Amino acid sequence: MNIHILGSATTSFGELWERSLMSLFAEAVEAALNDAKLEPADIEAAFIANKAAGSYENQHHLNALVSQLFPHFPPSVRVEGACASGSLAMIAAELALLSGRYKTVMVVGAEKMTDVSSQETTTILSGAADTSTEVGSTFPALYALLAKSHIKSYHTTREQLSAVAVKNHHHALSNPRAQFHKEISLEQVTKSQLISDPLRLLDCSPVSDGAAAVILSTQPVKGKTKLLGFGQAQDSVSLAGRSSLTSLRATKVAMDQALKDSGVSRDQLQAAEIHDCFTIAEILAIEDLGFFGPGEGGPATLEQRTTIGGKIVINPSGGLKGCGHPVGATGVKQIAFLNDYILRGDANVALAHNVGGSGATAVVHILGK
Amino acid sequence: MNIHILGSATTSFGELWERSLMSLFAEAVEAALNDAKLEPADIEAAFIANKAAGSYENQHHLNALVSQLFPHFPPSVRVEGACASGSLAMIAAELALLSGRYKTVMVVGAEKMTDVSSQETTTILSGAADTSTEVGSTFPALYALLAKSHIKSYHTTREQLSAVAVKNHHHALSNPRAQFHKEISLEQVTKSQLISDPLRLLDCSPVSDGAAAVILSTQPVKGKTKLLGFGQAQDSVSLAGRSSLTSLRATKVAMDQALKDSGVSRDQLQAAEIHDCFTIAEILAIEDLGFFGPGEGGPATLEQRTTIGGKIVINPSGGLKGCGHPVGATGVKQIAFLNDYILRGDANVALAHNVGGSGATAVVHILGK
Repeated sequence: MNIHILGSATTSFGELWERSLMSLFAEAVEAALNDAKLEPADIEAAFIANKAAGSYENQHHLNALVSQLFPHFPPSVRVEGACASGSLAMIAAELALLSGRYKTVMVVGAEKMTDVSSQETTTILSGAADTSTEVGSTFPALYALLAKSHIKSYHTTREQLSAVAVKNHHHALSNPRAQFHKEISLEQVTKSQLISDPLRLLDCSPVSDGAAAVILSTQPVKGKTKLLGFGQAQDSVSLAGRSSLTSLRATKVAMDQALKDSGVSRDQLQAAEIHDCFTIAEILAIEDLGFFGPGEGGPATLEQRTTIGGKIVINPSGGLKGCGHPVGATGVKQIAFLNDYILRGDANVALAHNVGGSGATAVVHILGK
Repeated sequence: MNIHILGSATTSFGELWERSLMSLFAEAVEAALNDAKLEPADIEAAFIANKAAGSYENQHHLNALVSQLFPHFPPSVRVEGACASGSLAMIAAELALLSGRYKTVMVVGAEKMTDVSSQETTTILSGAADTSTEVGSTFPALYALLAKSHIKSYHTTREQLSAVAVKNHHHALSNPRAQFHKEISLEQVTKSQLISDPLRLLDCSPVSDGAAAVILSTQPVKGKTKLLGFGQAQDSVSLAGRSSLTSLRATKVAMDQALKDSGVSRDQLQAAEIHDCFTIAEILAIEDLGFFGPGEGGPATLEQRTTIGGKIVINPSGGLKGCGHPVGATGVKQIAFLNDYILRGDANVALAHNVGGSGATAVVHILGK
């Protein structure tokens, strides 16, 4: 794939009560243009990622609202695939570039989640499940089922789950955009409030506001990061329709496609931004992506083999747990973060993994120098 | 553009209280496959159009729910651009095909609007306006402002507005999928209940349930309709930011692009499916598309120059007014209808025009033999 990242930006992630959704979009758009040293008129089309502004604030038609941030009103489209909206907007932009219709486009994702109660946001997020067959299931409950299956099959321990959150909070310390800048201990995670057994409060990524943008181009500019390939796969939305509850098939298929598409081998990958909406999700992901064998993800995390300095750095940004998870922004922020990470020499080849719902949509991107 | 329509289908449009959103999607998918004589496995990717299932029934993640209608779970993405969602999903599919990544894909749009009160659906639809600056404005109110401006500038009459609804109900008589199969008179429209002055009940397209699907391919199959070109343009979401209230700039720009892209001249067009969410919208559209001069759209309609047999047939399906307007389905249904219309020899070259909100998004497609 011959696509270059000309610039990228991420707003601060957090509980940004003083900010509106559109001001987050605007900040990310402007910051990405500045990063790329481009003018607004250089953007030929915009691809917007957002999960649920229609539910949060009855605002649909975000494509037009983002287009009008540019004086020349570029064509724009909103893309949604639950928590994978960001990476699906990336793919839509990549396909548009590969079509030859555009040379330079922007992808911008944002979500404003903290203006409603946590009960309301839990309900809105549950719309990523199959509301006709999984009605009433919250996402902590669905991932708790996956955690229980993994524990049963592989003897994954409470301490191993906790180690994911501890590592990601540790990594977030060096990310100025992260929602949390606070070390936590294994004991703090293990003793945090029970949400849905076995998942506790500190097993869960937070509710967040934030935005991220990347500018993509088929025009090569020296010294920029390249998107090398991607994969996208789907599976049953309902857990009841899955072939396994100890792995996500869609992640495996998307990974195979991305490796093939990019021509990169798994052992070339030095860092990965992973969809750790819950601690168990990171353990599933690093196994499904093939970095560790089935049942080895938990021990590897506890042994700090996924911490900076380890075999492969998982979630150097802090991930969804430490950096925050403004849903529509997440898949774009993963790319934006890895772009900077590669540019500053912390990795040559890296991977982004974004999941919708409990695994019905999975997207893998591979980036490199 | 080298894209062929291998098959298409539209469900009945109407108040389908016994039907679920997913059953409408499933019916359209199956019927389009049958029409194209293809197997589910022939579909390499699916592009889903829906405006507001998140608001109607808290169901996000429709891309995955539609993907699982296929045994092989093709990659799938949901596209939204308010009432232009259907045509934006068409463009996303076309760009994906032009990228060379896929050879055959499906676009399927659906909306289930009648399970909530008309007050709730009016609120949900108002999310296509700018809820920060047009808060409280319903869509009848916004289009009433456009109607008043047009009446003031061009002396457009009550009778001319009514003639749009009369024609579209007449055309819908021969469309078995249409929501209404009932002739109405100029007097009935003119005496119908006032909704937002000057717009009356029969000036408004109905609230509808329905779905439509088309199968697109870069592989030529003899005797199929071709997509010849498209255009997409944006404008200020809020009416207060527009350069004119007597025309939609985005429609004009999209039309110029579509003509250039397709190499078709305006006078080759024999039929057009137009976004007549309100009667005034059709008058604006046929002027903005250049079929009639400014202020001439009303008289032309009253003189039956846009009725079947006239200069150019506008909305042979019955349009949004006569056929119905299940929002996410509309832009796809326009293409599906014109595909059949061209195949049965009623036109050689035709146009589809789909608008989001009060004109902030406009898409024009041109199709032909």
